[in-house]
Amino acid sequence: MAKKEKKFRPKARLPRGFRDQFAGDVSARLDMIDRIRTVYEQYGFDPLETSSIEYVDALGKFLPDEDRPMGGVFGFQDDDEQWLALRYDLTAPLARLVAERYDSLAKPFRRYQVGPVWRNEKPGPGRYREFYQFDADTVGTPLMAADAELCVMVAETLSTLGLQADEFKVRVNNRKVLNGILNAIGGDAETDEGYRQRLTVLRAVDKLDRLGGDGVRALLGKGRLDDSGDYTDGAGLDPSQIDLVMGFVEAGGGGNEAVCKRLEELVKDQEAGLAGVRELEQIAEFVEASGSNSGTVEIDPSVVRGLEYYTGPVFEAELTFEVTNDKGQVVQFGSVAGGGRYDDLVKRFKGVEVPATGISIGVDRLLSALVARDTAGEARRFGPVVVLVMDNEQIGRYQKMVTELRNAGVRAELYLGGSGMRAQLKYADKRNAPVVVIEGEDERNAGQVTLKDLILGAALSSEIETSEEWRKGQPAQIAIDRKELVGQVKEMLARHVPAGAS
Amino acid sequence: MAKKEKKFRPKARLPRGFRDQFAGDVSARLDMIDRIRTVYEQYGFDPLETSSIEYVDALGKFLPDEDRPMGGVFGFQDDDEQWLALRYDLTAPLARLVAERYDSLAKPFRRYQVGPVWRNEKPGPGRYREFYQFDADTVGTPLMAADAELCVMVAETLSTLGLQADEFKVRVNNRKVLNGILNAIGGDAETDEGYRQRLTVLRAVDKLDRLGGDGVRALLGKGRLDDSGDYTDGAGLDPSQIDLVMGFVEAGGGGNEAVCKRLEELVKDQEAGLAGVRELEQIAEFVEASGSNSGTVEIDPSVVRGLEYYTGPVFEAELTFEVTNDKGQVVQFGSVAGGGRYDDLVKRFKGVEVPATGISIGVDRLLSALVARDTAGEARRFGPVVVLVMDNEQIGRYQKMVTELRNAGVRAELYLGGSGMRAQLKYADKRNAPVVVIEGEDERNAGQVTLKDLILGAALSSEIETSEEWRKGQPAQIAIDRKELVGQVKEMLARHVPAGAS
Repeated sequence: MAKKEKKFRPKARLPRGFRDQFAGDVSARLDMIDRIRTVYEQYGFDPLETSSIEYVDALGKFLPDEDRPMGGVFGFQDDDEQWLALRYDLTAPLARLVAERYDSLAKPFRRYQVGPVWRNEKPGPGRYREFYQFDADTVGTPLMAADAELCVMVAETLSTLGLQADEFKVRVNNRKVLNGILNAIGGDAETDEGYRQRLTVLRAVDKLDRLGGDGVRALLGKGRLDDSGDYTDGAGLDPSQIDLVMGFVEAGGGGNEAVCKRLEELVKDQEAGLAGVRELEQIAEFVEASGSNSGTVEIDPSVVRGLEYYTGPVFEAELTFEVTNDKGQVVQFGSVAGGGRYDDLVKRFKGVEVPATGISIGVDRLLSALVARDTAGEARRFGPVVVLVMDNEQIGRYQKMVTELRNAGVRAELYLGGSGMRAQLKYADKRNAPVVVIEGEDERNAGQVTLKDLILGAALSSEIETSEEWRKGQPAQIAIDRKELVGQVKEMLARHVPAGAS
Repeated sequence: MAKKEKKFRPKARLPRGFRDQFAGDVSARLDMIDRIRTVYEQYGFDPLETSSIEYVDALGKFLPDEDRPMGGVFGFQDDDEQWLALRYDLTAPLARLVAERYDSLAKPFRRYQVGPVWRNEKPGPGRYREFYQFDADTVGTPLMAADAELCVMVAETLSTLGLQADEFKVRVNNRKVLNGILNAIGGDAETDEGYRQRLTVLRAVDKLDRLGGDGVRALLGKGRLDDSGDYTDGAGLDPSQIDLVMGFVEAGGGGNEAVCKRLEELVKDQEAGLAGVRELEQIAEFVEASGSNSGTVEIDPSVVRGLEYYTGPVFEAELTFEVTNDKGQVVQFGSVAGGGRYDDLVKRFKGVEVPATGISIGVDRLLSALVARDTAGEARRFGPVVVLVMDNEQIGRYQKMVTELRNAGVRAELYLGGSGMRAQLKYADKRNAPVVVIEGEDERNAGQVTLKDLILGAALSSEIETSEEWRKGQPAQIAIDRKELVGQVKEMLARHVPAGAS
């Protein structure tokens, strides 16, 4: 029953920064997530799903002075005027959950969570406002074994996903070491000015990859003029202080033991810094003890990780193989996962410190890396076998073929479009169907069906160049006995379909 | 580095109508979704993921007179002042996508999508504001074969999930038949009044299960006074009109052929109604031709499906086994999936009609049915094997055991909590660990480890009553050679862990 039509006709379009994903992308992501899940479960992590929507204050995204959420989140008011928001990451909801259910949880609480997060930020090429994260966290233990385990686990994950040991590394650093050095320099992190200076130092160090040593030195000192003429204020350190920070940043290389030794010398007898070095040593030992993939986990003092809330070890999984970027430059693929220890996060709610450590995989970024390396499992994915409809009166016969194929485990469908032969073949092509089944009147009378191998057909028409080869080749189209439908289709599929994808 | 602490301490809590889901629930749902996915892919449907956020007008949830979204959706303004909202279902985004990409899609376009949807409605017991749907739709074909296929597919899905043929049915009706009868009665659906009357009739018929024939008759006529004293206005039909509608509603039973015959007599020569009966006949034939589970698909004129937008066949999958409801009454479990044909939905955007049909599974509801029937795959799910830490100096040795177990495919973890033996065993219990591994000093010196079978231990302490039985029983704790760790743990697990869940 049609209501009187309204004049208003909306435009069919997606908001900026959002996207639709089709079969190939969705399947590849699902497949990758499944494989990560298997590793994480093996390590004893359990799945958790928190809600997509949280109170803004619980996310730590509330502006108390202005009674509204800060930029960066999608916020909205509930009926009772309280501000809600879509989760911005999977860590803040975890902190909320732990604070809410602290007494009933098995501690340490080990969970993984995978799902979309939302950022109300300016979208760009490859930068979406909705994307997947895959997080694992261990909450309730101060032991470095927990941090080390996450590093080993992410290394094993990358290896499971088909990356070779020389194609990635997990870099580990510790905030306490740099803090120790900054303490030694002087400056009080408890004052606003000291706090801002430390952030500026962290931000400068974080740019080592992009700006090189000299650029970072400028940012640690007075400031830096970039190529476009923009000036960035620096941290205001003096040259000897800059040397100390740079000595730290560039202390990597030569094996974990050597790096720890160098760091120990740099922090001298500064207590916080020494504690940090001890933690790195423990992580290195633990990684060593866990054997597999241990060679890919490296202590590297240049790792920063932007987020302020890390309180100890920080880590980053980086892919080292080269790709060509948007500007045509050959660069290393770069970071696909990162994390660290955040002992203060639950404290926001409870007032008491709950030690915790976690790692987050950028699902879409890792997936694009796997696609670039051609190790994404579903890269070659065929559509269903399509049974053509040559005569609308015989649709029951065609349906029976489809049912037989499905019952034998073959992905199959009836063409439901009501168009002619040419359109049907075009449809089958568009669906990436490996085989079509045709039963016209002549075939029906002869008790036969025709199978058309579309994959072979495409290969024949593009690759085979001489007619002799053509004749020797396997025919892309065969007439078979109707009774042999299932067996023959399966045989045809076996030529092409990768194992497990039928 | 700790920023100066703010006074504000948020309360750790979830907004009303949202929830956290832990390992058992998440795994059971994932497992169920995987099994549905397998069936749908087998039928030729491809996965699609649209974004969670859409323009409100594209969702059809815009109040043009008031420049804001209507109630029922979570809406918010983008930076450019346009209204966005979280998707309310998976059908409206599909219609948007089809309208946006019509020319490039293979048609018919066959996709499935599974994911959360959000409703800004009053929550209640078991009624959440975020829940999962699993939809399959075929867009771009007027053929009844598409509708029939969905009915057969959902029947096969329920069967695959472990339900017996007498525990569910898929009921099919057609809006055109009832419309035909209402046309015959008189009343113009194109006027506001006629349109409202039709909605009232549909709503009344929809209550047959709950109110019985007399209750529906009252609602078709002047109105109905319910037990609580509330009065509901009726559709205002006269007695002979009511008889006609009730004759239609109660025309079910005795097989699809008999039902179609009865309906044909009821609509007489009313054209729209006859077209509807023809469509039902085609669906019945097609279902018959597809063989398996065809006995569970029934033409049933009492099916309504609330949504206005259906234009032809409507269907509903219903579980017929009995459960006890909140009020202690024994009732049939009821609907777990529904759908139908909605030829007008894409028209909102494009002005042209695009025939489409789809079905949506209420994932959480179906899952709770499977749990009630004990066919949910992950119902018995064990935690990891836990290796206890008896001596912090030996953590490398313990870690090595964990690594050996994991490498052999055993889910295992090191206890990371830093507490004593008793707390560690309590943790293992809470994690539902099947086995713990203990290596104290004595064992280490003897080259042994102790395995504790927690599942057997629990069974022994609850079931075995005489000490003689106890002695005869298998020991819940054994000392083994350290070298035999992996083999012995696997043997212990094999006693308990269901196949495939290790």
